[in-house]
Amino acid sequence: MRIADRIARLGTETAFAVAARAAAHKAAGHEVFPFHLGDMNIPTPQNVMDAACGAMRAGKTGYCPSPGIPELRDALAGDVSAARGVDYSMENVAIQPGGKPVIGKFIMACMNPGEEVLYPNPGYPIYESQIEYHGGVAVPYRYVRDDAGFHIDLDYLESLVTPRTRAIIINDLQNPLGAECTPQERERLAHLAMRHNLSVLLDEAYFDIRYGGRSSSLASIPGMRARSIILYTFSKKFAMTGWRLGAAIGPKAVIDIIAKLNVNDESCSNHFIQHGALEGLTGDQSGPRAILETLKERRDIAVDLLNSMPGVSCPRPEATFYLFPEVTELMANKGFGADYAAFAEDVLVRTGVSLCTRLHFGRPLPGEKRRFVRLAYSGIGADEIRKGLLALKAYAEA
Amino acid sequence: MRIADRIARLGTETAFAVAARAAAHKAAGHEVFPFHLGDMNIPTPQNVMDAACGAMRAGKTGYCPSPGIPELRDALAGDVSAARGVDYSMENVAIQPGGKPVIGKFIMACMNPGEEVLYPNPGYPIYESQIEYHGGVAVPYRYVRDDAGFHIDLDYLESLVTPRTRAIIINDLQNPLGAECTPQERERLAHLAMRHNLSVLLDEAYFDIRYGGRSSSLASIPGMRARSIILYTFSKKFAMTGWRLGAAIGPKAVIDIIAKLNVNDESCSNHFIQHGALEGLTGDQSGPRAILETLKERRDIAVDLLNSMPGVSCPRPEATFYLFPEVTELMANKGFGADYAAFAEDVLVRTGVSLCTRLHFGRPLPGEKRRFVRLAYSGIGADEIRKGLLALKAYAEA
Repeated sequence: MRIADRIARLGTETAFAVAARAAAHKAAGHEVFPFHLGDMNIPTPQNVMDAACGAMRAGKTGYCPSPGIPELRDALAGDVSAARGVDYSMENVAIQPGGKPVIGKFIMACMNPGEEVLYPNPGYPIYESQIEYHGGVAVPYRYVRDDAGFHIDLDYLESLVTPRTRAIIINDLQNPLGAECTPQERERLAHLAMRHNLSVLLDEAYFDIRYGGRSSSLASIPGMRARSIILYTFSKKFAMTGWRLGAAIGPKAVIDIIAKLNVNDESCSNHFIQHGALEGLTGDQSGPRAILETLKERRDIAVDLLNSMPGVSCPRPEATFYLFPEVTELMANKGFGADYAAFAEDVLVRTGVSLCTRLHFGRPLPGEKRRFVRLAYSGIGADEIRKGLLALKAYAEA
Repeated sequence: MRIADRIARLGTETAFAVAARAAAHKAAGHEVFPFHLGDMNIPTPQNVMDAACGAMRAGKTGYCPSPGIPELRDALAGDVSAARGVDYSMENVAIQPGGKPVIGKFIMACMNPGEEVLYPNPGYPIYESQIEYHGGVAVPYRYVRDDAGFHIDLDYLESLVTPRTRAIIINDLQNPLGAECTPQERERLAHLAMRHNLSVLLDEAYFDIRYGGRSSSLASIPGMRARSIILYTFSKKFAMTGWRLGAAIGPKAVIDIIAKLNVNDESCSNHFIQHGALEGLTGDQSGPRAILETLKERRDIAVDLLNSMPGVSCPRPEATFYLFPEVTELMANKGFGADYAAFAEDVLVRTGVSLCTRLHFGRPLPGEKRRFVRLAYSGIGADEIRKGLLALKAYAEA
């Protein structure tokens, strides 16, 4: 069969290759510490499972409306409004089979071929893939690191805007960096979006994965609600990654278009699991609280151990379940220079630690000299974190 | 927010408006007989529900591979190979969140903008929408009716092929017609596809909804497997419409592309419901058998009653759960001529029967003079069918 030309522009998540390599190493009889996973090894809360099974057995097995069941749209609008200080109602919510579908649907709804979209690099690789797949020009903006963590290089970002810039993707509470904006940075980002009349995708997948302080949304800054689509997911807060349930939240006119894309692409999201999510939002909250406690313990073990290693330095993010330690010195000490692939393979073979590198989150930017890797602690327990990172520490000290 | 130009090309399923009108009529206190629904009012088999809930509680709540869990891909390849006499293995299967996503993914994988795709009219309206949305030219082919039922007008179809024709969509076992090809027609279709080097989408959503005889697939005709993608769905056979689970089945090179689209669009389909579908394929088959018995009883009641009405004539399809009676005379007798909307409204108000018309399945073709409506019997029980169609009979006789 002949293949259409657009497929040549389609990217992917190269981190899947890391998972395949880790699986092969494990199959060969070696212990593997899976820090590469963005998945979670924590059960979905019991009340959510009970509600989903109950709905299934009660016959919620037929189609539901394309933008989702009204009860869930209503509850989610209320939850998101309260948490962000913005006023959304049911008509602002289109339920999706995951948070991820919001990326492509935002791009399709807002970007014409040939237009430019700003996106974070390092960042989630599907942004770049969807922009380019739909014929746009993906323009990466960058981060700088100080002792507190990572910050968007706002002057650089500003310099990238052209008359053809149509949209910007902002992943405050960021994968892979664990970064978040200061209130001043949020103001400046909002100002930039408004001055240049940009549409904004607010990827807030990790908004509720937070260990201290309080998350803020750019949507709450005056003038931003009307130009922003929020990517919401049930995956992280409720440990529901494999359930595939999320939502697009924003102005009704765009949500109506996204719901029409739903009609064309998948009719609706699974009916009965929406009742599980409804219980998650409105029922007993001990489940999500326990998930956060589990993750926080893991974070602290991992950050303390990483910072005890020579040639490694790691901020302690208050949100997400990712760490992005700098390993410039460690890689130099081990003789790898800029060769991320050889370094990651050496670490896997000598310590069993499987991790992603900076390269899995976008092409390196011009002049980039510092080296980073990404460790996720969502899919690995506290004991394994300790054991794996002690092995990595011994490797670093050797 | 500014909206991208491509959205102007996006179509929808206009039958949703019929559902809204029926709901309003019911809310006003009238009895409504829902013949407009393509949904099913039959429970999912117990063993399928048990397996899905069991997998959920056993922790199948994290991501699974983008093309689906290996056990399901393997079982489905075996099932489809045996039923169609074609040889598929796991690598030929990409699980999807429904059968519908296969339409858009086939178009994206195979059609360049400006190329022509042949599709059935009357037919499922999403074909035309996806072709035009992705920049192609949607070229409708047509059917002729004889006493036995509907047949593709093959001479007309052949006359539509141009050097820019890239693909054809074939919905043998057809919605809304209930039509299917004869073996000779299948051979001629296959010959046409091969002679003009067309890629083929075989929408086989109703392959297993069959009351007599045996379904055949164009994929089994020598030379067709290499150019065909089968749209498979669990929705109908297992009464799982709202679960959203289906698959694309075809040559590995295209299935790999479709799996890469999965990575970009939704990561994967819901994990634990795939274990439900696996039980459906490999476990006790009394569930799907009972579903077919229920549907067959409904078909016979509906066809007999329709053919007892003056000005109405309806073939008895051996497959699908749709009827497409001719109502040319009835509409003329009632003074509606070609005004489908006024006729459907009059029928609803005077009898409570809610139905779709020919217009919900594509724009009328030049010279079209006979009038048809569509009744689905998947979402309405035998007693209601009887009551509703007796009311319609009285209306026809009045």
